[in-house]
Amino acid sequence: MKQNHLAFADWLQDCATHVEQVLDELLPAADTAPARLHEAMRYAVLGGGKRVRAALVYAAGQACPISGSTLAVDASLDRAAAAVELIHAYSLVHDDLPCMDDDTLRRGRPTAHVRFDEATAMLAGDAMQPLAFELLAEMPIAPALALQASRVLARAAGSLGMAGGQAIDLDSVGRSLTRDELQTMHSMKTGAMLAASVSLGGIVAGASSSVRQSLDTYAQAIGLAFQVVDDILDVTADSASLGKTPGKDAADNKPTYVSLLGLDAARDFARELGAAAHQALEPLGEGGARLAQLADFIVLRDR
Amino acid sequence: MKQNHLAFADWLQDCATHVEQVLDELLPAADTAPARLHEAMRYAVLGGGKRVRAALVYAAGQACPISGSTLAVDASLDRAAAAVELIHAYSLVHDDLPCMDDDTLRRGRPTAHVRFDEATAMLAGDAMQPLAFELLAEMPIAPALALQASRVLARAAGSLGMAGGQAIDLDSVGRSLTRDELQTMHSMKTGAMLAASVSLGGIVAGASSSVRQSLDTYAQAIGLAFQVVDDILDVTADSASLGKTPGKDAADNKPTYVSLLGLDAARDFARELGAAAHQALEPLGEGGARLAQLADFIVLRDR
Repeated sequence: MKQNHLAFADWLQDCATHVEQVLDELLPAADTAPARLHEAMRYAVLGGGKRVRAALVYAAGQACPISGSTLAVDASLDRAAAAVELIHAYSLVHDDLPCMDDDTLRRGRPTAHVRFDEATAMLAGDAMQPLAFELLAEMPIAPALALQASRVLARAAGSLGMAGGQAIDLDSVGRSLTRDELQTMHSMKTGAMLAASVSLGGIVAGASSSVRQSLDTYAQAIGLAFQVVDDILDVTADSASLGKTPGKDAADNKPTYVSLLGLDAARDFARELGAAAHQALEPLGEGGARLAQLADFIVLRDR
Repeated sequence: MKQNHLAFADWLQDCATHVEQVLDELLPAADTAPARLHEAMRYAVLGGGKRVRAALVYAAGQACPISGSTLAVDASLDRAAAAVELIHAYSLVHDDLPCMDDDTLRRGRPTAHVRFDEATAMLAGDAMQPLAFELLAEMPIAPALALQASRVLARAAGSLGMAGGQAIDLDSVGRSLTRDELQTMHSMKTGAMLAASVSLGGIVAGASSSVRQSLDTYAQAIGLAFQVVDDILDVTADSASLGKTPGKDAADNKPTYVSLLGLDAARDFARELGAAAHQALEPLGEGGARLAQLADFIVLRDR
């Protein structure tokens, strides 16, 4: 994933295609018993999504001068990218369940519990989490780095990260949140896993602590930008281009950056965050090019 | 947890009390935001259970001559014991949900989704999994061993272990299974995590490969025995001593060892497995004493 000459859109597409292939190989086959569970896991994980998290892993890995075996680092970046996509995919499956958001459409297809059943969807999500940690434990790099990666992923996915953010989101329905509360919720719900993706790329590539710090600052900015733009798109995009039911957050009376700031101010805020991300990358020089493009992509995307 | 002079019942109680304390310390406080989620996690994890998995971790650790720092090994056994109890507790929370077994009583208390709500119970379970892997990643032992422990736990919890066993169990309702199919289901659903508990104790204590092999053989036997006895108790015990709704598996028309073999033959089978467990421990000499007692406990328990 190091083709520096590729235009950004082609590189991003290559990342998505590549991690899809990696996931396809690392997930149990659809006919491996229990077949229905594995079919559901493959259904939920494969076949789409922008794979922004995987791209962040690859781009962050690319931003660091590699010491040691390039092959081992590349294989490990693949596993780290697959791991963050597995955690993301599991969270979508559980988030779509009737007891949560009760969504029937995801990436333009029926959600997992609609296509299979609730129990199978829940178990498929449950089984994706340990698979992510298994992939990290099998990365062919120094055990201390692999362990560090595992800890970063665990924290990002847990009650002080993504799962905690979902819980706050749940409790916020029908309530008004302050801007600080909204920011905390999103930094946990979405930001934590985006930041973990960036961190994992740096850890796997053996980044120095100063590079790690630049990556963290970058990650904070794009994590927040991602959610601001999500809120904007929930209002402005249509179902076909969004691949999920739009206007749902507003209909559920969930607080969003748009409801809080208004559409124009939300757009300004997203642009400011994009600029902050660029600034954080300055110490990385040319190595940070893909990360910079990803920041632009996150701010400017229309779906 | 190395008081060799204690009677088994006291030792087991000490293990339970100790791991409860460890979990109490390692779980986020009930007033840490998001408070309701953390309250639900603590409700589901703390306050009971026999803690057989934790005891297996400690007993297996004790079966190995410790090389290196005893303090570091003890602290790591605590984390490993807490990790297996977290995975077990999460599986109970999800298993009790309306879309799965729809149980309202667990350890004599309302199940988590009854006490809280479905979404909170699901998220609490979701957040327990990464916490388990975080605890393993923070064990103060050689990173290579901690990583091996993480991989063992991930496999045991995943689609080819516990979650996969749950999926087979789900698909088996109303169907008749052969004895082989039933055995496969249980070896995944219950046996995998019991075996992982034994393995983790050995890994953390730095067991030699021949000791690891003895532990594995032992673990296979007690894993199966555990489920056979569970099936027996589902028929013979009452709600008060069982702490959950008895007769439920039979009522759900789930295949059990009792429905398959009859009560007497199921009891004989459990005793045979207990004997096999003892035999596997022979090479360990006196070190295996607690594991031998745990095998007896698993076979002879009445709740």
